[in-house]
Amino acid sequence: MNKEFDIIRRYFKKTVSNAILGIGDDAALIVPSSKTELAISMDTLVSGKHFFADTDPYKLGYKSLAVNLSDMAAMGAKPRWAMLSLTLPKILAEQNEVWLGDFSQGFFELAQTYQIELIGGDTTSGPLSICVQIIGEVAKGDALRRSGALVGDDIWVSGCLGDAALALCHEKQQMVLESDEIDYCLSALHMPTARIVLGQKLIGLAHSAIDISDGLMADLGHILSASNKAATIDLVLIPCSSVMQRVIQRPFALDCLLSGGDDYELCFTASKSKHKAIEVLSEELSLPLTCIGEIIQGEGLIVKDADGNEISMEKTGYDHFRS
Amino acid sequence: MNKEFDIIRRYFKKTVSNAILGIGDDAALIVPSSKTELAISMDTLVSGKHFFADTDPYKLGYKSLAVNLSDMAAMGAKPRWAMLSLTLPKILAEQNEVWLGDFSQGFFELAQTYQIELIGGDTTSGPLSICVQIIGEVAKGDALRRSGALVGDDIWVSGCLGDAALALCHEKQQMVLESDEIDYCLSALHMPTARIVLGQKLIGLAHSAIDISDGLMADLGHILSASNKAATIDLVLIPCSSVMQRVIQRPFALDCLLSGGDDYELCFTASKSKHKAIEVLSEELSLPLTCIGEIIQGEGLIVKDADGNEISMEKTGYDHFRS
Repeated sequence: MNKEFDIIRRYFKKTVSNAILGIGDDAALIVPSSKTELAISMDTLVSGKHFFADTDPYKLGYKSLAVNLSDMAAMGAKPRWAMLSLTLPKILAEQNEVWLGDFSQGFFELAQTYQIELIGGDTTSGPLSICVQIIGEVAKGDALRRSGALVGDDIWVSGCLGDAALALCHEKQQMVLESDEIDYCLSALHMPTARIVLGQKLIGLAHSAIDISDGLMADLGHILSASNKAATIDLVLIPCSSVMQRVIQRPFALDCLLSGGDDYELCFTASKSKHKAIEVLSEELSLPLTCIGEIIQGEGLIVKDADGNEISMEKTGYDHFRS
Repeated sequence: MNKEFDIIRRYFKKTVSNAILGIGDDAALIVPSSKTELAISMDTLVSGKHFFADTDPYKLGYKSLAVNLSDMAAMGAKPRWAMLSLTLPKILAEQNEVWLGDFSQGFFELAQTYQIELIGGDTTSGPLSICVQIIGEVAKGDALRRSGALVGDDIWVSGCLGDAALALCHEKQQMVLESDEIDYCLSALHMPTARIVLGQKLIGLAHSAIDISDGLMADLGHILSASNKAATIDLVLIPCSSVMQRVIQRPFALDCLLSGGDDYELCFTASKSKHKAIEVLSEELSLPLTCIGEIIQGEGLIVKDADGNEISMEKTGYDHFRS
């Protein structure tokens, strides 16, 4: 018990100004703005499943918040409050100067970037696992849902895809990367950038949105299922980093691009009439936004190669999507 | 992946009527009432730490929500929405007919009692761990905090204390209970009753409140720390079940009563002028509410025996409180 309260006081309790009551009572108290809806999500990262046990705790703190911010981005919501439930092996709690200090620094560095306040949670001992819950605000009726895609919509993605998955392939020794390539890909894996500003700017532009956490195929697939639509995308249009371009012919690389997880870019659909506005937004944010295909009537997702031929999805992780 | 969505669809996705958007998008969407504050808390139960790995999943589903409801009760809030992050060993996911069916039944049975809607969360594989996050509403300024205790306040507790801890002692073979005693105590341990209605009725009556999850000494201690007050309580006044009365002389029993966790009764303080009103409330709710002591000036918690002598707390788990 002693340790739990020490840990909370030392590493996680900060003065809050956007909450009525933060850490330290049976519950936190907040007053949302009256004209907003609250967007709420939670994501758990489990050691050995979502990260290697020896991952730098600073990056882990950062990422555990980033993946939740990405959900807010995908709704077009402004993230405001977070809760953290940290399950920690005794050995890490005992090394707390090192591990907890770094973890909380990574968490709060990202939190401060967006003025997000940690208002509660708990700490317990057990196998390493991090559960973050996030609450954001979005004007009533404005939230970007998965279900709004319309026939004729352009399909867009932000940034580049597949680099985090390349890093995982490298760490699993499925692929050998050069040292500068590794650094770039590991950074994509460990410190993803949630597209918070983009998400909010897409309100009024996009019909639907999702963040790419399970891979493009799976996540675009969620938009299609929720919207009861089909899509065609062009493989050559999918935005690739220079690293991905260099390795694209190697085994696993195409899987990484199409089905790799952990990108945390946004995939969204918008009317063709918004094409120009989205290009302007891309410049304004200095963030590549790439149109990769189109929403069509029907069911399923068709990926076409450079010659316009349909690519068999058995090869490219389509099974992930079939879930 | 396939399994994750199957599990969510099959066991956890219910139609929501109090949320704008429930399970199935990047975030849930809710619109709180405009005159309320939102009370938010989260609690994680870890296998081997908070429950034995072979605990009946129905009871686990029930308890994982109950302990969170208890936090709402302690704030006087009306619980409305819940999120669930379930980390599940593959073997349990594969036996899902048995384990997940029972777990979700226990969870939803309690949720329905209070019209609480499950609006999101996630499911992942890993060591068994259950993180529930709960959101409740309370009229602005009405929430019962730990910090409001005043000198001269009566100290009250609901129900009986220590029975859940007796069950744990029995399971750890520190104490032998008769079979009818075991059933009673195990029920207190596995299916605690969150004092939701009591919490809401205490608004306007109580100055401070907390739920007893870490034991009376520790949790009353939190009220004292947060309120900068001291307290005296009379051991003989602490409400005991007939089982506790029978075993109170045995080793560990007094520890269970004073410092046992998992009671989930409320401890609250109220002006003496509310004494009669609280007795009336007790009758109205058919729930014992017992005045066990008084808030005084100073620091610390004094427990007195039947003769009015101070009991040394080294014997009774006071160290828990010293955290």
